[in-house]
Amino acid sequence: MSDEGTTGGGFDVPSGRPAEMPTPRPGDPRLARLSLNQRTIAGWSLREAIDGTLQAGLGSIGLWREPVATAGLSTAASWIAESGLRVSSLCRGGFFTAADPALRRAAHEENLRAIEEAATLGAPTLVLVPGGLPEGSRDLVGARSQAAQAIAELAPVARAHGVVLGIEPMHPIFTADRGVVSTLAQALDIAEQFPVDEVGVVVDSFHIWWEPDVEQQIGRAGERIVSYQVGDWITPLPADSLLSRGMMGDGHIDFGFLTGAVAAAGYTGDVEVEIFNAEIWAAPGADVMATVLRRYMQLIEPWLQKTEV
Amino acid sequence: MSDEGTTGGGFDVPSGRPAEMPTPRPGDPRLARLSLNQRTIAGWSLREAIDGTLQAGLGSIGLWREPVATAGLSTAASWIAESGLRVSSLCRGGFFTAADPALRRAAHEENLRAIEEAATLGAPTLVLVPGGLPEGSRDLVGARSQAAQAIAELAPVARAHGVVLGIEPMHPIFTADRGVVSTLAQALDIAEQFPVDEVGVVVDSFHIWWEPDVEQQIGRAGERIVSYQVGDWITPLPADSLLSRGMMGDGHIDFGFLTGAVAAAGYTGDVEVEIFNAEIWAAPGADVMATVLRRYMQLIEPWLQKTEV
Repeated sequence: MSDEGTTGGGFDVPSGRPAEMPTPRPGDPRLARLSLNQRTIAGWSLREAIDGTLQAGLGSIGLWREPVATAGLSTAASWIAESGLRVSSLCRGGFFTAADPALRRAAHEENLRAIEEAATLGAPTLVLVPGGLPEGSRDLVGARSQAAQAIAELAPVARAHGVVLGIEPMHPIFTADRGVVSTLAQALDIAEQFPVDEVGVVVDSFHIWWEPDVEQQIGRAGERIVSYQVGDWITPLPADSLLSRGMMGDGHIDFGFLTGAVAAAGYTGDVEVEIFNAEIWAAPGADVMATVLRRYMQLIEPWLQKTEV
Repeated sequence: MSDEGTTGGGFDVPSGRPAEMPTPRPGDPRLARLSLNQRTIAGWSLREAIDGTLQAGLGSIGLWREPVATAGLSTAASWIAESGLRVSSLCRGGFFTAADPALRRAAHEENLRAIEEAATLGAPTLVLVPGGLPEGSRDLVGARSQAAQAIAELAPVARAHGVVLGIEPMHPIFTADRGVVSTLAQALDIAEQFPVDEVGVVVDSFHIWWEPDVEQQIGRAGERIVSYQVGDWITPLPADSLLSRGMMGDGHIDFGFLTGAVAAAGYTGDVEVEIFNAEIWAAPGADVMATVLRRYMQLIEPWLQKTEV
């Protein structure tokens, strides 16, 4: 029996288990909202990532500033325009926290450049990683206040460029050294101080799946959701916590539950697969992409549809 | 110049840095509320831990069920009674979550034994580690509900034994595999369903330091705080997340801030040093104890005093 909408078999990466379903083929309309975050297949250059995303039939790509800079901003922008792909987000701005005012000013300048790049690339949102405690500091309340203040200074600039700032709450495993905004609730407390077309929030399954009232907070977020990113929480936790994200379905996150909540909140944007994992980076990009497509179809896409009535 | 209240010098463990202050001597009244959690010096037997705690001049010890069982419950109880030490807590009950009702019944039975042991040892509280997601389950809401239900079944038994159940919210790094109660706020939502002499909460710096509204939640906890445990959050995070706690002062936690909040909430009980760390376990127990005394005097004790007016 042939199924023209799919290609067959193969093995999932990085688990090595036989695929549980055929791989959806390019042109399958159910892939329209799927976005590949570049860092999921870190071995691909920007050109390769655009080509791989097109060949797989996705509608969108999530870009990072570093590979964009390597290609050159204007080259990258023209490649994207020619491709017809949407840019789901640009990663990343932020890193606001520092003891030295000169460092905070430097971060502000860097974020201004990031906003311009997002606008040039047609990215609707710039993802903001708030930054951790300043070197040697234990003043978490102060660091959180610094992050909020820095966002306030960027918000009107972002608006003028047609870019919405997306605050990414980060799992508390990263509070000390990467992101002092620790819950979706806390991100919303900041975002709600600004107009909805200036500051929103990033819902990343890896970071917020454990949050006690996550369903209510996603509902509260509503139109402030500027990006929905997916990746799993796996155990045992890999030794390098920065690379501890797993392929959807390999871990403990209930993607139906989260995706349903995001859809019910009114989100109709792209779903960006963002996984940092050494085993996935070591696998061939095409195999990673095929697994991403299957897992998306199995675990996420049905819950996007259900609530689109 | 001699300082009769202290002994000199030495090196901190595990950092190897020269001690920043003399080690307080036994008899120093400022040590009265300090408790050694047995697992901080895991190489000590119960007998050695009691002796080491007495020799250092602490007022209290935090016990674990396993070394108590090794010594024998009645022997352990008589040793404790003879020592004059308070038992700050017994670790640990809990592990409530399981898909199989038979496993949940077995956990209930085990918790009944733990309550009896706490009563026999004179421990005012039994620390409850809720347990992670049941094997193969992604139903976090359901697991949290199981934990709350199990606590409801134990609460009257604990009260009859004069033991308060202490729900320990656990850092979200452990939500999947160890503790589904992830914030002090969530622990209080459960505890407040019961009388204050049945169910309280454990404030462990390592687990809750990052919580966005931690100061308010500690204030809310008030007389429900049945244990204050201290240990630091260090980076880079050790590869084994279960052993990722650090000596107070070696990491990112502001102990003055947390301790002041706990004191302001009215807590007048013991301060239990609980650190799981392979490097600390590898160091001589006496050196660990000396470092604990110094760091306690430097980072914690002054903030207990300040608010005891």
